[in-house]
Amino acid sequence: MSFSFQVEATCGRARAGRFITPHGEVQTPVFMPVGTVATVKGVPQDILDQLGVQILLNNTYHLYLRPGVETVRALGGVQKFMAWNKPILTDSGGFQVFSLADLRKISEEGVQFRSHIDGSAHMFSPESSIAAEIGLGADIIMAFDECTEYPATRERAQQSMELTTRWARRSRDYFAAHYREVPWFAEQAARHGSEQRQALFGIVQGGMHLDLRRESAERTVEMDFDGHAIGGLSVGEPRENTWEVVESTIPLLPENKPRYVMGVGTPEEIVNYVRLGVDMMDCVLPTRAARHGLLFTSEGKINIKNARFVRDEGPLDPACPCPVCTRYSRAYLRHLYASQELLAQTLNTIHNLAFYLGLMRRVRESIIQGEFPGPGSLQA
Amino acid sequence: MSFSFQVEATCGRARAGRFITPHGEVQTPVFMPVGTVATVKGVPQDILDQLGVQILLNNTYHLYLRPGVETVRALGGVQKFMAWNKPILTDSGGFQVFSLADLRKISEEGVQFRSHIDGSAHMFSPESSIAAEIGLGADIIMAFDECTEYPATRERAQQSMELTTRWARRSRDYFAAHYREVPWFAEQAARHGSEQRQALFGIVQGGMHLDLRRESAERTVEMDFDGHAIGGLSVGEPRENTWEVVESTIPLLPENKPRYVMGVGTPEEIVNYVRLGVDMMDCVLPTRAARHGLLFTSEGKINIKNARFVRDEGPLDPACPCPVCTRYSRAYLRHLYASQELLAQTLNTIHNLAFYLGLMRRVRESIIQGEFPGPGSLQA
Repeated sequence: MSFSFQVEATCGRARAGRFITPHGEVQTPVFMPVGTVATVKGVPQDILDQLGVQILLNNTYHLYLRPGVETVRALGGVQKFMAWNKPILTDSGGFQVFSLADLRKISEEGVQFRSHIDGSAHMFSPESSIAAEIGLGADIIMAFDECTEYPATRERAQQSMELTTRWARRSRDYFAAHYREVPWFAEQAARHGSEQRQALFGIVQGGMHLDLRRESAERTVEMDFDGHAIGGLSVGEPRENTWEVVESTIPLLPENKPRYVMGVGTPEEIVNYVRLGVDMMDCVLPTRAARHGLLFTSEGKINIKNARFVRDEGPLDPACPCPVCTRYSRAYLRHLYASQELLAQTLNTIHNLAFYLGLMRRVRESIIQGEFPGPGSLQA
Repeated sequence: MSFSFQVEATCGRARAGRFITPHGEVQTPVFMPVGTVATVKGVPQDILDQLGVQILLNNTYHLYLRPGVETVRALGGVQKFMAWNKPILTDSGGFQVFSLADLRKISEEGVQFRSHIDGSAHMFSPESSIAAEIGLGADIIMAFDECTEYPATRERAQQSMELTTRWARRSRDYFAAHYREVPWFAEQAARHGSEQRQALFGIVQGGMHLDLRRESAERTVEMDFDGHAIGGLSVGEPRENTWEVVESTIPLLPENKPRYVMGVGTPEEIVNYVRLGVDMMDCVLPTRAARHGLLFTSEGKINIKNARFVRDEGPLDPACPCPVCTRYSRAYLRHLYASQELLAQTLNTIHNLAFYLGLMRRVRESIIQGEFPGPGSLQA
């Protein structure tokens, strides 16, 4: 079975749809929490389930280093490994190599790098990256790309985009020859009664240059990926640039395939990207901010360590039905954070994810009802 | 209403009973997990509930320093503060001052000490300690004692025991005059239709000297506390000494009141203490060991960081029905621990608590069935 995506409703350029993966269905627009090393930091999987997480993002770079692709493969793939029997998406490792690893050396072949954990030497090429993603066995995997740094000259952005294009083709070709090596191949085929495969998405690059983005989009679309991502954003550029790139690139991507903007954004931004026709997003913001005591609420952003919460008996967000807001007070959350207690990170993360996921559910409903972005605030 | 304890069944010297506190009933023998600063590190309260935690221990010393007694009082007491609407027990702060605080100076009046957090100067006397415990509002509170260090000469142990005896009387007298100041006094009286008060337990000291323990027990029992604890154990003495003190002291404590051994022990030890007639125990072992990757299972103790678990698909403990053992593999738990992930601490703690609590449930059942300690292993 090849991956398919159906648009169910549109409202302006926004759309509500769904796609089915070997490990289940995902309703879009969807926000994907980041579970870097096969865990959303501090949150047990049953709670992710209760919160309505549909699909998790895992980082290939991290899992490749620890516990290693062969270990995850031997354990049946990352879904079994982390006991999350639902869809998972892996990035290609490209972005992580650029942002985390030491002593990178980029060539036509790929990227040599040293592990940020132990300094050991490794190489990611399009072929080895896709091999790793096949071994991990996520439901959706990403082509290996070079994430262009910001700022980049036009010349540099063009070279980088062209390298990404060549790597996209090599990623696609390697995948076509090896997709049956996914650890759950036989099991899922038996279960579904037909061949099941991972979906492979291509990534549009081109820096902040709209004509390069256009060229990258056209050349990526030609390769007939299952979906398309816009990469190379949230790399330090002004938000207007991010917006401009997304706004101009989305219309160049086929309507019958998911459109994924990588690494964004704030609650306001993710709503606005949906308005442009984006179907999928991921971001560390809700989980990372939570660990720093920054909490999103219907009344705005809160810094829970603020002394004004010391005796605040009220819930974190009176409008939020999540298990944190219905049980604990701001005073208690403030105490946990001030005391550097582990539970602070767990509860804060649960709430921030509930906020993002609830927001996306309301966005989806309002698209289906033809009322997006709606007269009232989507925050409440 | 005064605190009461009923013995429901005995089996040898072991007994199964129950007591009722303003925040609910507790079935004994009971193991109390330690929630130092009003949290069991890394475990949300709803999971503690699911695990069958009946009563939590909080540390007065820690809560006195952070967030402070007046804050907890203003928020309605520690049950409301931590959103745990079940029984809580607080220690007096004595042991914590002796083990954590800096620059202690002990006098007849009490203990001067400096906070381990910010070095600020404080004083605990029997009166101020009980005032703090009343302000926090736990269901069971402990008299202020001096925890005799190990080793201690007979002379030193006798002086210390006598000081504890005088402090016990002052604790009791202060409590009798002030028990109505507990933050939930009016609310619980209205709810129950009668005056509800905290239970106050006395503590037997005397070092490893059995005659001093006897004298301490007799003088403590005379003061008519609601229950009796054996303190000053697990301070570095050989396990034979601990056992000897408990074995000889328990028969000196009234049968119609709970007997509590503070700060013990391993799974084997807590079962053995029940055999001697102990009703209540608390220990940091299951929670602290969990955070260091040491897990208790029906097949013995496991160090989850061991490389042999890297590809072990099996559950941590095949005999354990806890939410960790029924969902995750040893390989995943090993990965989380090796990657220093927050979730390792949460899941490990959940399992170890489930192990201790399940063990105590089986102990209680076997006492009621007249089969304790039973022909088979209680571990399985």
